[in-house]
Amino acid sequence: MSFNTFGHLFRFTTWGESHGPALGVVVDGCPPGIVLTPELIQRDLDRRKPGQSKYTTQRREADEVKILSGVFEDERTDGARTTGTPISLMIENTDQRSKDYAEIRDKYRPGHADYTYDQKYGIRDYRGGGRTSARETAARVAAGAVARQVLAGISIRASLVQIGPHKIDYNNFDWDQVDQNPFFCADAKAAAMWADYLDGIRKEGNSVGAVIEVVAENVPAGWGAPIYGKLSADLASAMMSINAVKAVEIGAGFEAASLTGIENADQMRGGENRPYFLSNHAGGILGGISNGDPIVCRFAVKPTSSIITPRQTVTTSNEDTDIVTKGRHDPCVGIRAVPVGEAMMALVLADHYLRHRGQTGREGAVGFERN
Amino acid sequence: MSFNTFGHLFRFTTWGESHGPALGVVVDGCPPGIVLTPELIQRDLDRRKPGQSKYTTQRREADEVKILSGVFEDERTDGARTTGTPISLMIENTDQRSKDYAEIRDKYRPGHADYTYDQKYGIRDYRGGGRTSARETAARVAAGAVARQVLAGISIRASLVQIGPHKIDYNNFDWDQVDQNPFFCADAKAAAMWADYLDGIRKEGNSVGAVIEVVAENVPAGWGAPIYGKLSADLASAMMSINAVKAVEIGAGFEAASLTGIENADQMRGGENRPYFLSNHAGGILGGISNGDPIVCRFAVKPTSSIITPRQTVTTSNEDTDIVTKGRHDPCVGIRAVPVGEAMMALVLADHYLRHRGQTGREGAVGFERN
Amino acid sequence: MSFNTFGHLFRFTTWGESHGPALGVVVDGCPPGIVLTPELIQRDLDRRKPGQSKYTTQRREADEVKILSGVFEDERTDGARTTGTPISLMIENTDQRSKDYAEIRDKYRPGHADYTYDQKYGIRDYRGGGRTSARETAARVAAGAVARQVLAGISIRASLVQIGPHKIDYNNFDWDQVDQNPFFCADAKAAAMWADYLDGIRKEGNSVGAVIEVVAENVPAGWGAPIYGKLSADLASAMMSINAVKAVEIGAGFEAASLTGIENADQMRGGENRPYFLSNHAGGILGGISNGDPIVCRFAVKPTSSIITPRQTVTTSNEDTDIVTKGRHDPCVGIRAVPVGEAMMALVLADHYLRHRGQTGREGAVGFERN
Amino acid sequence: MSFNTFGHLFRFTTWGESHGPALGVVVDGCPPGIVLTPELIQRDLDRRKPGQSKYTTQRREADEVKILSGVFEDERTDGARTTGTPISLMIENTDQRSKDYAEIRDKYRPGHADYTYDQKYGIRDYRGGGRTSARETAARVAAGAVARQVLAGISIRASLVQIGPHKIDYNNFDWDQVDQNPFFCADAKAAAMWADYLDGIRKEGNSVGAVIEVVAENVPAGWGAPIYGKLSADLASAMMSINAVKAVEIGAGFEAASLTGIENADQMRGGENRPYFLSNHAGGILGGISNGDPIVCRFAVKPTSSIITPRQTVTTSNEDTDIVTKGRHDPCVGIRAVPVGEAMMALVLADHYLRHRGQTGREGAVGFERN
Repeated sequence: MSFNTFGHLFRFTTWGESHGPALGVVVDGCPPGIVLTPELIQRDLDRRKPGQSKYTTQRREADEVKILSGVFEDERTDGARTTGTPISLMIENTDQRSKDYAEIRDKYRPGHADYTYDQKYGIRDYRGGGRTSARETAARVAAGAVARQVLAGISIRASLVQIGPHKIDYNNFDWDQVDQNPFFCADAKAAAMWADYLDGIRKEGNSVGAVIEVVAENVPAGWGAPIYGKLSADLASAMMSINAVKAVEIGAGFEAASLTGIENADQMRGGENRPYFLSNHAGGILGGISNGDPIVCRFAVKPTSSIITPRQTVTTSNEDTDIVTKGRHDPCVGIRAVPVGEAMMALVLADHYLRHRGQTGREGAVGFERN
Repeated sequence: MSFNTFGHLFRFTTWGESHGPALGVVVDGCPPGIVLTPELIQRDLDRRKPGQSKYTTQRREADEVKILSGVFEDERTDGARTTGTPISLMIENTDQRSKDYAEIRDKYRPGHADYTYDQKYGIRDYRGGGRTSARETAARVAAGAVARQVLAGISIRASLVQIGPHKIDYNNFDWDQVDQNPFFCADAKAAAMWADYLDGIRKEGNSVGAVIEVVAENVPAGWGAPIYGKLSADLASAMMSINAVKAVEIGAGFEAASLTGIENADQMRGGENRPYFLSNHAGGILGGISNGDPIVCRFAVKPTSSIITPRQTVTTSNEDTDIVTKGRHDPCVGIRAVPVGEAMMALVLADHYLRHRGQTGREGAVGFERN
Repeated sequence: MSFNTFGHLFRFTTWGESHGPALGVVVDGCPPGIVLTPELIQRDLDRRKPGQSKYTTQRREADEVKILSGVFEDERTDGARTTGTPISLMIENTDQRSKDYAEIRDKYRPGHADYTYDQKYGIRDYRGGGRTSARETAARVAAGAVARQVLAGISIRASLVQIGPHKIDYNNFDWDQVDQNPFFCADAKAAAMWADYLDGIRKEGNSVGAVIEVVAENVPAGWGAPIYGKLSADLASAMMSINAVKAVEIGAGFEAASLTGIENADQMRGGENRPYFLSNHAGGILGGISNGDPIVCRFAVKPTSSIITPRQTVTTSNEDTDIVTKGRHDPCVGIRAVPVGEAMMALVLADHYLRHRGQTGREGAVGFERN
Repeated sequence: MSFNTFGHLFRFTTWGESHGPALGVVVDGCPPGIVLTPELIQRDLDRRKPGQSKYTTQRREADEVKILSGVFEDERTDGARTTGTPISLMIENTDQRSKDYAEIRDKYRPGHADYTYDQKYGIRDYRGGGRTSARETAARVAAGAVARQVLAGISIRASLVQIGPHKIDYNNFDWDQVDQNPFFCADAKAAAMWADYLDGIRKEGNSVGAVIEVVAENVPAGWGAPIYGKLSADLASAMMSINAVKAVEIGAGFEAASLTGIENADQMRGGENRPYFLSNHAGGILGGISNGDPIVCRFAVKPTSSIITPRQTVTTSNEDTDIVTKGRHDPCVGIRAVPVGEAMMALVLADHYLRHRGQTGREGAVGFERN
């Protein structure tokens, strides 16, 4: 993908810095006639919004989205609908706490992109991390809400499945739990345990990483554009582009390395209208094309790099020093990555839905209904 | 990326099926004046070539590359050099063993893309897997050899680091060992053990997965095109696009989820001309931009799906049946994925080298010399 | 190009409708460290602004641009400079005169895109033409102002050279005249005559077409990306994408068809440091690559389709009717296309400057200096 | 478009030089299940083939196309059909007359790209013009033949309408005449006159330009991707990318500048199932979207730059000299541009057909039938 644009037919371009006046996204190539209102987008944005619990940054942002173009409503359209022209969404920054930025201006924060941005561009908006701030993900979530509207009938959900060394117990997996705890965790027991664990992490001025699992159900077989536009490749790119993500896997993922061909084979049986699979090591993707099974993608988020424990670093003039990253930070940035992972899944699928329809003229596999 | 093209400025497009007359690649956007000969490309192709050992398919292919365009030599050019126009490389298929394809024509092979190609396209060249055959990776390796020439001064190497459940011991890691064993393994001890293990796997008509680690050294700081053209995102897409790959990670990867911010921070010290890092959990990439440290990428390859142990499947008319995939297959397709991983790393880096140069006018970080 | 994005390395994406809250553009891939202020952009926007004379629409729009991202200034940057991240520019719509849109909602205006948008999208924001309004060109001009900053040392100017059947006399051509008359015309005599002519056209409730000539000087030899990214091809695409444009030519253009090879050959002589051409039928482009001579591009704009003389048309339900397009319209939309043509030339050149630098590592021809 | 690739969903990439072993094209994104045989492609190639008459170059090339991938046939497919994977087409160069290239190696041919290629790349395959040879257009015609198969029901034809100063008389326009004369001219009378005129031009060692008109009929309303993917903009780019083309126009084209809004308005009336237009100044495109009327595009080709009359030029070391371009050249390269123009029209339409289908899910306007 190119710079700040992602997608081929269903495309979006994000812009904005952490402490600029606003951030936003332009969604282009959206099918016309799709119902779209600020409320539909806000619903997803609110899930990602900071300050929801003591486990996320205390920065207070309304994250209120404005639709500036691409949607039209009159007495005939039965509500606000997309017109097929670019959809411009904007979120104004309201809580840019004025502060002295000298520290991050003059020192490179370990684990952050301060050093690399200086090396690449020779200039850097260091206020709150500028373009590298996780605030950019709000634009992804807004775009993802549009994608969800395009993907009527497809369910996209995510859960935090690991925090630090503590994994969930899949026997307790219950999607209904995800919105019942501050971790978007489908395992209530794990969530309860994590609460104490994360309190400790925060109190020691530390942070921790996490793993998110995103699952898309009712995706028709046939989506994906081999060889280099494989559904798996675009998902990998999409998830890896999220702040702090260091790993992505589909289905059995790294575990597949340890499996034998006999174990890994997802055997097939004849179903009523079409075949079905007896297992899903493939994570719903074979040869880069969806096979009708749930698409299962996991990605790992490294621990928040901004911690109040001093770390060794250098100044922009290459002199040794220490740094303590003050400010309002998530002890586990992985938590808020959950709705972001859902958004990226939706954005990849919406693009491949249109790409598949464009090349083949088919909506998807037999029996796939669109409204 | 789009269909069969990968890359933005340094781009390549592959074509060809397993049992067609030939396969090939067109490399476009290559800088002019780069030395390029068939020998330079053949060297890399020969490492991927089938039939090298009893651990890879016995299909006999010369994999001899022809340069059809984009290179010119006269009495003034000091050898054959690229002209900046498209470089067309072709490899003819010679060992298309004639056989009865009725079995794979009428049945879906579990773990293969047979079913999904039929669902997507409604037509499928089933001979040897057609477009989904790992033979396509020969075209990647050929293109990668061109990319290596563009990346003078950068070292790109890979090693098999896990086969089935058996990982290497990094204390034994020695790049010089990679070409001393049939597994491209940097740990001689592990390689010796794997030999017996894989013999057993093969004898039982089974197969097994693997993990490959690719390392690029001397990459200047500053390469990568955030937010959606992050170096990490393009690497993830590149590796995930390789046949049978189900997972990709950068640096600490999934392990990063278990680390705390204190542990994960790659602290910095002032070096002679520029800072250096005390660790490399980042795998050489921060904020999607190279930081000057070695770029470390691992990917998992699932076990070869073609095994001679019967598996349950269905016919193309949705009737239950069993299948045994005869033919000449790699017991561990991960082995031959090693040179492919190197090629994809080279192709991603060559593209980002040109993209960085285009946007910023800089070759890379201070002190990075190009011939 | 794809939907609402133009460019490859230096890219921009426009959004917004005539009667929405705002319109804007996101410029991506801009080199870092370029001086950029709202004033620099406003200067170009003001030349395109409506209501400048009785020959352009009386709609009153301040067309005041806001820079929302991508520019940073601190005590070290010596003014506001681009950071290499996306530059988001927004212009709010202020004079959306409330009116009854029933007429254009229910009838197709001949020469407009009303019918085709309905055929393509099945829904249409008809207020003031929605997305098809010439207001979109304000976003191009804003982006073009950024491109000009990137193209230090290159002069890009345009003149109206024909209005209706009346062409200028090139013997009177004087760039200094362009801003001395309401037609952006380099021929003062022609401009004077056009004033009366256009008064007549307007009084009879009619409109007329025009031809604009855009000239870029000091473009180094070597820009352009054959075969399908030829400088001439991208210019043709850029100009043809402007509202109401129906023709584009480079250098001798259509006249070249009537010339013989002997006449058309731009002969060369040895210059001080490099060769020069004795004529410029090529319009500064040979084989799709700039040759160092001025790049000369002309394009034709059809007469404004909105006229107050009744025309035959049909309703959206396919019934015969007549229509009179009331409202505030340019009698010759070609006039305001002059700064738009300059902007598109700048945008194409900025993209090819970066593309050339990316592939070859050269800024341009020998002796071409960049600040 | 990017370097040597054209198109967005239906894409093609050409490669090859005039005197290399072969040239070719990779067509990617083609819908599956389309009938495709070498004969279908050869039919179009033979129309462009050199040496057809004394008015075209006497170089003898069979221009025999090989399909290397992307097409499959078995007992169930009812003939050879596309599989949706890349279609690789190759044409071997057979008549690379061995000669001394010292002249064009050391001197820049006026009107050719010799100088600009040297300025851009610093290296040049000068044999027969290398990549800049009109032989590249054979690859376009081959790709265009694939596009025609995708565009079942759409008629795409072209005619030479002007040669030197001599235009055809549209009253004599008869498509059946196009293949009855060596000029692809729909006006038999004009063709007869041109024969004498061109004999004279050739005898005096001169050459001349031409204008080609391409018409596509039965294109459904709704194709085109505004604002920057307008059908008109992509056509302009496509035609301008053809060797020696200096101008492109749609519908009334430059003539539109002289028209008034009253004259130019294509008035509408209610038809049986949909509206129709009383005129076609728009050339079938409104707002960048097809309106259902014939798409009319004209482009101008400059005179062949290779002439045997001496012209002033410089050596590659910037010294004054003269040059006479010997060899086998078309006195009017515009003649063979006729089938090339048809091919580019087909390629643009095939791409927009898929793009429209992808975004909207519609094949085209009501009543548009596809086989």
